Amino acid sequence: MASASLPPLAVALGDPAGIGPEVVAKCWDNRAAFGLPPFVAIGDARSLELVWDGPIVPIDDLRDADAAFDIGLPILHIPCSETHHLGDPSTIGAHCSLDSLELAVGLARSGSAGAVVTGPVSKQQLYAIGFAHPGQTEFIAERCGISPANVAMMLAGPTLRTVPVTTHLPLGQVAGLLSSAMIEARGRVTLRGLQRNFGIAEPRLAVAALNPHAGEGGSLGSEEIELIQPAIDALRAEGWEVGGPMPADTMFHAASRCTYDAALCMYHDQALIPLKALHFEEGVNITLGLPLVRTAPDHGTAFDIAGRDLADPRAMAAAISLAAASAARRRSDMR
Amino acid sequence: MASASLPPLAVALGDPAGIGPEVVAKCWDNRAAFGLPPFVAIGDARSLELVWDGPIVPIDDLRDADAAFDIGLPILHIPCSETHHLGDPSTIGAHCSLDSLELAVGLARSGSAGAVVTGPVSKQQLYAIGFAHPGQTEFIAERCGISPANVAMMLAGPTLRTVPVTTHLPLGQVAGLLSSAMIEARGRVTLRGLQRNFGIAEPRLAVAALNPHAGEGGSLGSEEIELIQPAIDALRAEGWEVGGPMPADTMFHAASRCTYDAALCMYHDQALIPLKALHFEEGVNITLGLPLVRTAPDHGTAFDIAGRDLADPRAMAAAISLAAASAARRRSDMR
Repeated sequence: MASASLPPLAVALGDPAGIGPEVVAKCWDNRAAFGLPPFVAIGDARSLELVWDGPIVPIDDLRDADAAFDIGLPILHIPCSETHHLGDPSTIGAHCSLDSLELAVGLARSGSAGAVVTGPVSKQQLYAIGFAHPGQTEFIAERCGISPANVAMMLAGPTLRTVPVTTHLPLGQVAGLLSSAMIEARGRVTLRGLQRNFGIAEPRLAVAALNPHAGEGGSLGSEEIELIQPAIDALRAEGWEVGGPMPADTMFHAASRCTYDAALCMYHDQALIPLKALHFEEGVNITLGLPLVRTAPDHGTAFDIAGRDLADPRAMAAAISLAAASAARRRSDMR
Repeated sequence: MASASLPPLAVALGDPAGIGPEVVAKCWDNRAAFGLPPFVAIGDARSLELVWDGPIVPIDDLRDADAAFDIGLPILHIPCSETHHLGDPSTIGAHCSLDSLELAVGLARSGSAGAVVTGPVSKQQLYAIGFAHPGQTEFIAERCGISPANVAMMLAGPTLRTVPVTTHLPLGQVAGLLSSAMIEARGRVTLRGLQRNFGIAEPRLAVAALNPHAGEGGSLGSEEIELIQPAIDALRAEGWEVGGPMPADTMFHAASRCTYDAALCMYHDQALIPLKALHFEEGVNITLGLPLVRTAPDHGTAFDIAGRDLADPRAMAAAISLAAASAARRRSDMR
């Protein structure tokens, strides 16, 4: 849990027309039930007022956050240039998202915020205003001076953590673009992240196969032999505990999940299908390999239900909790 | 549930050196708790005696099965030519598996057995004795005079049913071999199977996308637009209720599973990862599109634990239950 000396968390509200403001407000409403430490909303206060009747406390300095948090939801107000419409994706919302993301990351880099939690954004609208990164993760990596190749996106739920080696690629390109070096690098970032962010001294990594039945000795594909096994061998040579290549269909049931701390998956859906099948309402995205702690709820803007009081705050609450726990752990490691 | 007039089920023991005989025996032991109707083991009685102390009742005629079932586990004894060794894959075991499979299918085709349930076999050992089919499913299809292209392998658990369009292919070949005609044919067999085997008058099919985020309008792959949507449109034109292409990562959580009766998946692990993550101990493989009912537990021979009393009989019990329920439903439909 967060130590007393941890600065407040910076929670970027994401797209003001999506469900981000609503789930952050619901987290403040349920802060005791969820066991949440003090956090500060970063974004336009009007996006909260539109969907929530609770108390909002504007602050200018994050050092005022702890006291304000007892009274209402503290916010560092960044006014959007124009008024957005709830549920409508727009470039107005994209500009607001980017402003709040930029400030939240800056606060964490400077040490004023203990960690960054990012609300959901519309990538399509961000691209429309010239955003040149694939997603928030790569933007944050660049702001921290880290190559996106050296960070990893982990999806974490109560009983499973997965990390995809390749992410947003057509399935038909995965086998051709996968390399032993990528698997090894992503595996190493994952193992170090399990130590730094989760406090697991001797982490166990399970590496998924690419092909059905792990390729059946080469008869159903050769990537296990040619790409995955060499990466596993290289990590083992460094002393890490690494299993696999494992047939992907039999590695996600309860008994199997107990044998490892994270599963390294070869493609997007291999990592996300089991995570969301098991932990849809409470999945957290945590970026490993950064000098700061960054988490996000593993859901999108859900424009279709914005403003209807239907959004489930559990994933945002889990993202705030994990950010606080990881940040506290990293601070205590540095002492 | 099975009607009183349903003939007994024929349960092929599978490879005698694997866990097949043990899980069938445990099903008889727990027949009341599992609510199982009368069934007859087909195979070598010695494979049961090696792993089980319970009563075995050899019979020659399936009409004696109901009476025998109250006293012990009825068996149609087919002696293996040589003695197998528990836990050791061998061609001896493969010959036994094939003999029991052939007889069980024959009994169901002739109407003496109400349905076929098949125990796990070693494909590698079957191939070594010249077995020319990819698996038991294709063998049974041929014996029934049906093209393997017109049957479908459904994996069924308590809250999810999935059908893979492509099965045992290297992942890198899936996108190239997938066709609209295959998706449409497999979808149609699945919808008819939901009617005939599960009694769902107006079945709802959910079709998974191939690419992450369902291809994001073409930017992450074009198969959704070029192959999957046309197949969905063709099925809808016949009056079927078909949804998709759905992003595969968000279609397997509890709320989403309630919206369809079966998910049509594009490749092996897409169908099997969610099924086994959710229902590892009770998954049933049911072949759709056959003139007879055939089910199997969704696990392998598990040679490594054979004879150690560790095998979990729940999947075999679920396979026997589903076979009985499907056969009874199909008989009542024909009256």
